[in-house]
Amino acid sequence: MRMTFRAVALAALVPITAGAVAVQAETVTDFTLDNGLQVVVIEDHRAPVAVQMLWYRTGAADEAPGQSGIAHFFEHLMFKATDDLAAGEFSQIVAAQGGEDNAFTSWDYTAYFQRVAADRLDLMMQIEADRMRDLILTDDVVATERNVILEERNQRTDSDPGSLFSEQLRAAQYLNHPYAIPIIGWRHEIEGLDRAEAEAFYRTYYAPNNAVLVVAGDVTPDAVRDMAEKHYGPIAPTPGLAPRQRPQEPPQLAERRLTMQDARVTEPFLLRSYLAPQRRSGDQKEAAALVYLAELLGGSGTTSLLARKLQFEDPKVVHAYAYYSGDALDSGVFGLGLMPLPGVTADAAEAAMDAVIADFLATGPEERAFARIKTQLRASEVYALDNAEGLARRYGEALTTGLTVQDVQDWPQVLQEVTPEDVMAVARKVLDRRQSVTGWLLPEEEVQ
Amino acid sequence: MRMTFRAVALAALVPITAGAVAVQAETVTDFTLDNGLQVVVIEDHRAPVAVQMLWYRTGAADEAPGQSGIAHFFEHLMFKATDDLAAGEFSQIVAAQGGEDNAFTSWDYTAYFQRVAADRLDLMMQIEADRMRDLILTDDVVATERNVILEERNQRTDSDPGSLFSEQLRAAQYLNHPYAIPIIGWRHEIEGLDRAEAEAFYRTYYAPNNAVLVVAGDVTPDAVRDMAEKHYGPIAPTPGLAPRQRPQEPPQLAERRLTMQDARVTEPFLLRSYLAPQRRSGDQKEAAALVYLAELLGGSGTTSLLARKLQFEDPKVVHAYAYYSGDALDSGVFGLGLMPLPGVTADAAEAAMDAVIADFLATGPEERAFARIKTQLRASEVYALDNAEGLARRYGEALTTGLTVQDVQDWPQVLQEVTPEDVMAVARKVLDRRQSVTGWLLPEEEVQ
Repeated sequence: MRMTFRAVALAALVPITAGAVAVQAETVTDFTLDNGLQVVVIEDHRAPVAVQMLWYRTGAADEAPGQSGIAHFFEHLMFKATDDLAAGEFSQIVAAQGGEDNAFTSWDYTAYFQRVAADRLDLMMQIEADRMRDLILTDDVVATERNVILEERNQRTDSDPGSLFSEQLRAAQYLNHPYAIPIIGWRHEIEGLDRAEAEAFYRTYYAPNNAVLVVAGDVTPDAVRDMAEKHYGPIAPTPGLAPRQRPQEPPQLAERRLTMQDARVTEPFLLRSYLAPQRRSGDQKEAAALVYLAELLGGSGTTSLLARKLQFEDPKVVHAYAYYSGDALDSGVFGLGLMPLPGVTADAAEAAMDAVIADFLATGPEERAFARIKTQLRASEVYALDNAEGLARRYGEALTTGLTVQDVQDWPQVLQEVTPEDVMAVARKVLDRRQSVTGWLLPEEEVQ
Repeated sequence: MRMTFRAVALAALVPITAGAVAVQAETVTDFTLDNGLQVVVIEDHRAPVAVQMLWYRTGAADEAPGQSGIAHFFEHLMFKATDDLAAGEFSQIVAAQGGEDNAFTSWDYTAYFQRVAADRLDLMMQIEADRMRDLILTDDVVATERNVILEERNQRTDSDPGSLFSEQLRAAQYLNHPYAIPIIGWRHEIEGLDRAEAEAFYRTYYAPNNAVLVVAGDVTPDAVRDMAEKHYGPIAPTPGLAPRQRPQEPPQLAERRLTMQDARVTEPFLLRSYLAPQRRSGDQKEAAALVYLAELLGGSGTTSLLARKLQFEDPKVVHAYAYYSGDALDSGVFGLGLMPLPGVTADAAEAAMDAVIADFLATGPEERAFARIKTQLRASEVYALDNAEGLARRYGEALTTGLTVQDVQDWPQVLQEVTPEDVMAVARKVLDRRQSVTGWLLPEEEVQ
């Protein structure tokens, strides 16, 4: 058995200034089983609970063309019968042990987790390992669950103009990359998913050499290693698993705009997204600067530039915000959103937003605002250490989007080293309208 | 040997009105070899020449994700060395026989053709059949030709803002279908094409069961059949060739706009494209109506609505036009274009165009204009029969985009049966801004 060990006291990496909150010294250990399963153990002995998260390095952007939705499909199929368990039995076992379980899918990963008393971890591994390879996919199971997913799409997307709008916007943001497709899948492609496709997907991607096991809580690395060896160790890896190479974007040369009208919409809404760098392994500086940029322009609270200027000084919007999504294998997104005040036209609200941004690009961040955000980030990174489940999610997400354990541990420090100049450099690079889509979701025009 | 024969006197299908031009009775015969090669013979004995066209049912929309440009790559590679011929020898042989040869690629097909004296046809088949399977793809050949293609992309696309603009517009038109990619390929993907990918593509798609042989000219079906059997007959088909299923479009719910600025552009230019039905086998009526719509709105000449209203009655544009591209396997495009007169703003020119279209949708086509186009189409369909090479292209394109010999032969009659009501029905369906992209190519803004 080949194993690499690394144990780091995370807290040691976070510079603690006088008066900072007290920090638990969280300990992270990682190793890899012979069959390729990467394991991360996050110790937190304050309470006798444990979280198991099994992350597959496969998401919506890894689907074959025309099979959108198949990654998310497994979020459902994985709770069906295996050779050992009946359909639904997985969650019944977790519940019977007083635990909770769930699953989630993104463009880059699919993850399954259970939160249980720490002494139930062995059982959780047993049943999670069972369904990694032993799911029984029949035509009937696939057909039934496909209908469930179509109904889910009905409820979450097709009956929600905001979701449809985001979906169309995203499809316009990417010219070539499969990040263009919706995680739940295009309806017409969900309808076509069949057992053979599901089987092929499962056999390829549900494998120890395509997974990351994260265990957090009242556990020791040795005990986790023994349990992982016992339950996951015997599972054969997928031979010749191809590297994750998705089609990349060509240069985006033309600013795009998009307008969607829907009778169900009552208030106009603007969303603009720009292509942005993602967190890159060993090179997270631009991503860290984008975290600041989003906070400065439109972070939560009322002190961001957009809120101050557009909500209070010269009221034009109900609310305005900015966000940065950088936890992705291939490309991040920087976004802006606003809802105009009644009586303010869409054009006027957007022009006001653009004026705020132009002003920011010309003058840079206020010193006090920048310092306040740095302090907030330091605090939130420290607080984050208190939450073992949140940490587990951080590691799982990082390790399925091209980052390493080291990158996760470096992140708080990288955030603290960002300078106003870094923010301005990345702002000038990212806030390039040629790489953006601006969408307006509008009420249906009244018939004249 | 299994062969199906069909011979139809095309001219018989075209209603000839008094005073119409004289028509050659062109005879079309089609059959299929045992290995799947479909053969179409178009007899034209007026001159002792023959055209061989070999069409592969593979184009840019059939490429694997991330391998854009590989279909077009073969337009180059197919002139390299085989086991029998040296690099470049193919074209030298054609030229030595007094012939011409060339090749072209679309999203749905790649085609190779030679025009020679009819008694050289056997030789042409010999060398065309040779390169169907016996190309020698080395790393060196692939690398060298990749550089040639990158240079071709430089010249045709990257140094031409109009081409870049079309490319970006097309990518915005399709949310999911690979018609979004450029035929020549995205630069970063061309750079990555390698021998192994080329080899796999060639072994799969360059096969008799994925090809249509069209021979036109001073030939007889029997002679063509014998030659085809001799040269193509021995070639093994690709076993288990998958049906051509590309990802289809989801509902397009949001109108898109796109603006590209380029310092090399001197005059603003508008292009708007709408998704439109393609010619469908056995169901070509909508496509035929779209041919009328394009002619009525912005056909060549100065009598179209857009030309009359925007060039002459109230001059707003240098020129304006409409087009319909419906020869496609999965989806057609209806397009509008214009260049504003100096001093007319982009907004004013576009508004004027939209007013013309709105007026057309409200009032329908003028009776005289409709009748004139019907007559023109009848004449052009009759003239088309005179051009054996043009007919060969029609059949090749049709048979590689989902149509049949019968569809090609029905087309002139389908065109003649279109009514003004058909045109209005398809206009109302297609001219839906939600399924459109409107792009403006503009000069770089002057620095203020």
